[in-house]
Amino acid sequence: MSSGATGEQVESVIEKVHSFGLRTHPIYGVQKTVIGIIGDEKTRVVENMQGLPGVESIIPILQPYKFAGREAHPDPTVIDVGGVKIGGVDVAVIAGPCAVESEEQLMEIAPSVKKSGARVLRGGAYKPRTSPYSFQGLGEEALKLLARARDETGLPVITEVTDPRNVELVSTYADILQVGARNMQNFVLLTEVGKSGHPVMLKRGPSATVKDLLLAAEYMIIEGNSDVILCERGITTFETNTRNTLDLSAVPVIKQLSHLPVVVDPSHSTGRSFLVEPMSLAAVAAGADGIMVEVHPDPDSALCDGPQALTLQQFDSMMVKLRAIASIIGRGA
Amino acid sequence: MSSGATGEQVESVIEKVHSFGLRTHPIYGVQKTVIGIIGDEKTRVVENMQGLPGVESIIPILQPYKFAGREAHPDPTVIDVGGVKIGGVDVAVIAGPCAVESEEQLMEIAPSVKKSGARVLRGGAYKPRTSPYSFQGLGEEALKLLARARDETGLPVITEVTDPRNVELVSTYADILQVGARNMQNFVLLTEVGKSGHPVMLKRGPSATVKDLLLAAEYMIIEGNSDVILCERGITTFETNTRNTLDLSAVPVIKQLSHLPVVVDPSHSTGRSFLVEPMSLAAVAAGADGIMVEVHPDPDSALCDGPQALTLQQFDSMMVKLRAIASIIGRGA
Amino acid sequence: MSSGATGEQVESVIEKVHSFGLRTHPIYGVQKTVIGIIGDEKTRVVENMQGLPGVESIIPILQPYKFAGREAHPDPTVIDVGGVKIGGVDVAVIAGPCAVESEEQLMEIAPSVKKSGARVLRGGAYKPRTSPYSFQGLGEEALKLLARARDETGLPVITEVTDPRNVELVSTYADILQVGARNMQNFVLLTEVGKSGHPVMLKRGPSATVKDLLLAAEYMIIEGNSDVILCERGITTFETNTRNTLDLSAVPVIKQLSHLPVVVDPSHSTGRSFLVEPMSLAAVAAGADGIMVEVHPDPDSALCDGPQALTLQQFDSMMVKLRAIASIIGRGA
Amino acid sequence: MSSGATGEQVESVIEKVHSFGLRTHPIYGVQKTVIGIIGDEKTRVVENMQGLPGVESIIPILQPYKFAGREAHPDPTVIDVGGVKIGGVDVAVIAGPCAVESEEQLMEIAPSVKKSGARVLRGGAYKPRTSPYSFQGLGEEALKLLARARDETGLPVITEVTDPRNVELVSTYADILQVGARNMQNFVLLTEVGKSGHPVMLKRGPSATVKDLLLAAEYMIIEGNSDVILCERGITTFETNTRNTLDLSAVPVIKQLSHLPVVVDPSHSTGRSFLVEPMSLAAVAAGADGIMVEVHPDPDSALCDGPQALTLQQFDSMMVKLRAIASIIGRGA
Repeated sequence: MSSGATGEQVESVIEKVHSFGLRTHPIYGVQKTVIGIIGDEKTRVVENMQGLPGVESIIPILQPYKFAGREAHPDPTVIDVGGVKIGGVDVAVIAGPCAVESEEQLMEIAPSVKKSGARVLRGGAYKPRTSPYSFQGLGEEALKLLARARDETGLPVITEVTDPRNVELVSTYADILQVGARNMQNFVLLTEVGKSGHPVMLKRGPSATVKDLLLAAEYMIIEGNSDVILCERGITTFETNTRNTLDLSAVPVIKQLSHLPVVVDPSHSTGRSFLVEPMSLAAVAAGADGIMVEVHPDPDSALCDGPQALTLQQFDSMMVKLRAIASIIGRGA
Repeated sequence: MSSGATGEQVESVIEKVHSFGLRTHPIYGVQKTVIGIIGDEKTRVVENMQGLPGVESIIPILQPYKFAGREAHPDPTVIDVGGVKIGGVDVAVIAGPCAVESEEQLMEIAPSVKKSGARVLRGGAYKPRTSPYSFQGLGEEALKLLARARDETGLPVITEVTDPRNVELVSTYADILQVGARNMQNFVLLTEVGKSGHPVMLKRGPSATVKDLLLAAEYMIIEGNSDVILCERGITTFETNTRNTLDLSAVPVIKQLSHLPVVVDPSHSTGRSFLVEPMSLAAVAAGADGIMVEVHPDPDSALCDGPQALTLQQFDSMMVKLRAIASIIGRGA
Repeated sequence: MSSGATGEQVESVIEKVHSFGLRTHPIYGVQKTVIGIIGDEKTRVVENMQGLPGVESIIPILQPYKFAGREAHPDPTVIDVGGVKIGGVDVAVIAGPCAVESEEQLMEIAPSVKKSGARVLRGGAYKPRTSPYSFQGLGEEALKLLARARDETGLPVITEVTDPRNVELVSTYADILQVGARNMQNFVLLTEVGKSGHPVMLKRGPSATVKDLLLAAEYMIIEGNSDVILCERGITTFETNTRNTLDLSAVPVIKQLSHLPVVVDPSHSTGRSFLVEPMSLAAVAAGADGIMVEVHPDPDSALCDGPQALTLQQFDSMMVKLRAIASIIGRGA
Repeated sequence: MSSGATGEQVESVIEKVHSFGLRTHPIYGVQKTVIGIIGDEKTRVVENMQGLPGVESIIPILQPYKFAGREAHPDPTVIDVGGVKIGGVDVAVIAGPCAVESEEQLMEIAPSVKKSGARVLRGGAYKPRTSPYSFQGLGEEALKLLARARDETGLPVITEVTDPRNVELVSTYADILQVGARNMQNFVLLTEVGKSGHPVMLKRGPSATVKDLLLAAEYMIIEGNSDVILCERGITTFETNTRNTLDLSAVPVIKQLSHLPVVVDPSHSTGRSFLVEPMSLAAVAAGADGIMVEVHPDPDSALCDGPQALTLQQFDSMMVKLRAIASIIGRGA
């Protein structure tokens, strides 16, 4: 309650809380009265209290994400995708082109990144782009190429789904569905992906707090899909030397609050290839369960985000250091 | 080019530009060489240049949004919705509940806000909520109630569409489709709304620059829908006293860059009812073409965002001042 | 306490609180225990609790700024500077050049802005500039010119002080000392200005929350100086069309939390002259107690921040509208 | 020039540029004219152009920091402080208490961190605190204790200077002066520290871009002090799980733009002790030249920032991993 709240106002709030079937526990301080509300957080109750006369603020004590949080699920979740474990001892490296451009491109990349140590192949089929004049992806043709690359290399495949009408289609080709940063609060899509039951990687939105991210994961888990991988890919700040600001502290923060695995995307977050290796190594040192890196045989001619792609050689050379760092903190890669 | 770029690197960039059919115009400075590229901006060309050896940065000169920008369309766009003009001399006030809750609620609000001076009725049928445990809206039932309210009051109706599969359905009831802030870069939805040809209000995403907003509008305009109203509704910052930070400077900034009308939402941006009147008046003083305000007969029992709703009386009293301020800058309301 | 906190941990926290001479009031909930601490907030106590085993978070209930806050001082503060009242019924308009450049410049500006309705004359003598290669101000020479302009026009004078060693010197010339945004947490300077007892305008730092701003004011008030004017001048965000993002909602927010007057600077916040009029009018509509505007007879040849300066004619024309808007919300100007 | 600029306007800008003794190089495009200006960037010239009719924007091509930038100084700077090299092959670890509290405290910490591998001892004597009610440091007494600790351990000492009047005093005790984040744009202090010629660590302000940081370093270098160490310590964002958001990408970004050494502070940036180890390891993996860590024998009773302090044991155990990671990227520690 605010400092000037009257006894009557205090009483009226207490009555309102009781009317929702919850118990109260008032504390009468020197300058202020605090009313403890006991029971499960009921969002609407809390929201409505806020407007009552004399109420200064409402402070929730319980985590609002019941299933994504560690409180009700202390053990870490390990997700098995075609034999590759994400969230376990080993750091899972996901690599591939930003966008699938052609069979030649994909078939050059896939075996190469596998040889270098990647465990999952990425490749965009549907590309959400800030400008409508940018390349938007090859669609289902790209999905077919990804499936073929999986057949040849044995690498499970991850690709983004952007349309709730496409979830089924994409699921028939992909091993992991990706929900992109711009769609992190596209709840229609989250619900559809949740219903699909397919393993999913959910990217943090550029202005989403960790709490928002976990609530977005909750949208999918309550549909029955608990195979959710979270991905830190940079947040929007004032700094312009990087596309976004990679928030690596979010990795140990999320691992404390949630049991879900956390992957870092050093490519989209920085937007510049010379930053990908240092940020990948840093991500592993910070405890990430995986990294997702964009590679391209010829970044200068890439149809999408060339400036942030590693060459196949750069990726291979980075993997050597990455494995060494993983081993220091007791992990493989 | 970077300071240390060799003559060879300069030549190689120039050749590459020519290979795209564009002309170059190099400037040889004391320390650096700058290569002017003449021709329409072709996004992919620009992106690819960035990776070439010796290239320091690419600075686009032309606006990337051809149809949303003022350069190619100097006159302001005025959108006519059932006789109400948005973007014209009068400030268009949009009011109504955050969410449609019941027939009684809506039929109490609609005639009241009309009497106070609102020109358009708002009401949420599909509510995107950060938490899956919050009220998600009444769906089609709400759409029907909105249509009934329009029939009774003559106020055109705006409501949010969140699912590309629902665009047609929502269009049969609503006069203006709203694309919410969280969906500003849901390009699948933008495309579908663009195709519908229905007037649309596009809300600025919480981490979207003005440029991003105009590019999102571009997605709809290139589908043939030029009846796009832009809405400033606050951006994400570090300040916690308000839900978001209302960026009122964006109003004159957008009006300089674009011909599209601009509306301000003082309710969602601030999240607190005591801020709605001062921010509404400020929005009109700053040159907004409209405001969108949430009202509720009993905010304390609202199913959604009660703390930011004005009572019907508060709204009426605010409208008196709003009209007076509009008249000072030569507008009606 | 965190969910898994043991009874022993709860006891140990309670004992620790008691050892500081404070009372406790525990609430045992279904999943969590909350320990209310009763007594004045003692910062160090609070900080130390945070590390104890089982403690999840500390949530302060009382405002941490005792003297700047409204809780202990409900009535608004009105500051009288040479007969001009700031924080009273009238909106106080402060105008003048970014930097004092010459006697001619200042003597052309001062009588002109007075005639247009300004009540206080601003002018920079010591200019903190991001780059060491920018014009840094005329120093004491500028102070003398400001004093002369006051003598001729009767307008009290405000100028920035940047060096604790100069507070006395600047105080001999200026009627109001200004502490700039970059120095908002320069506590050495705040303390010195607080000791001077001179009226002061404290500008909000670009990454300061409203709470940080009020705590900075507290630094001066506890030295005995309660004549503190707060100034909103924009915060740092990702938007690049304006130099900073003017946070106009902060005006009513501050007025709710604090009794101190609030002034808005539309010039530095936006950095662009075409935004100054709309943002000035918006600031008055939002309830600001004053605005501070930069004017220059010839902005194109200004030594400092020309792009954001109004011409004398633009300022005069703006004042007409500003007074009209002030009158609508029951104020003069 | 803007799209609608007339030939006359273009001519008039060209003439103005010539009047400053600079050469021009206009490019006449399909829709726009771009005027290249050749010569050293003269800040004031650039600023003044912005206001001319027809001018749309000014885009600087040269780095504005001449001495802090790599363009004019390609080789990395290595700073020698009492035999400890910062910016060389080895990662320099700086450790010690947030604030010097007593002789016992410091004499317990100093030999312990030395044994664990720290090369420099930190300890606050003058503490800038957001609230005036927080502990403000022991002042000169703390400086004497630091000097004594150096004498006993051989570790050079770093401490913050907050007052330009104290630079000489602090310099007589400390080996490295620290300019805190809140004072990064306290140009009066920067100038005084620059004149002192003493090695200095400059912390990035919470809303400072990398460019702002390098310009602040420039203020000291032009006074003749080139022994400047830069420190990334987190920027202000919307995320609330950490005090600030540690921007680790800034490490390789700064090393590309500047020759100065870069140190990371994982304690102040995160504000939480469980994040210090992962962020320290990540900083080294990202290429930092050093880290600065807060340790305390009993964090729960610390007078300042206890929640972010490591115990002596935690620090020792972290150093083992840190050295191993350093060796993987070819460095010692």
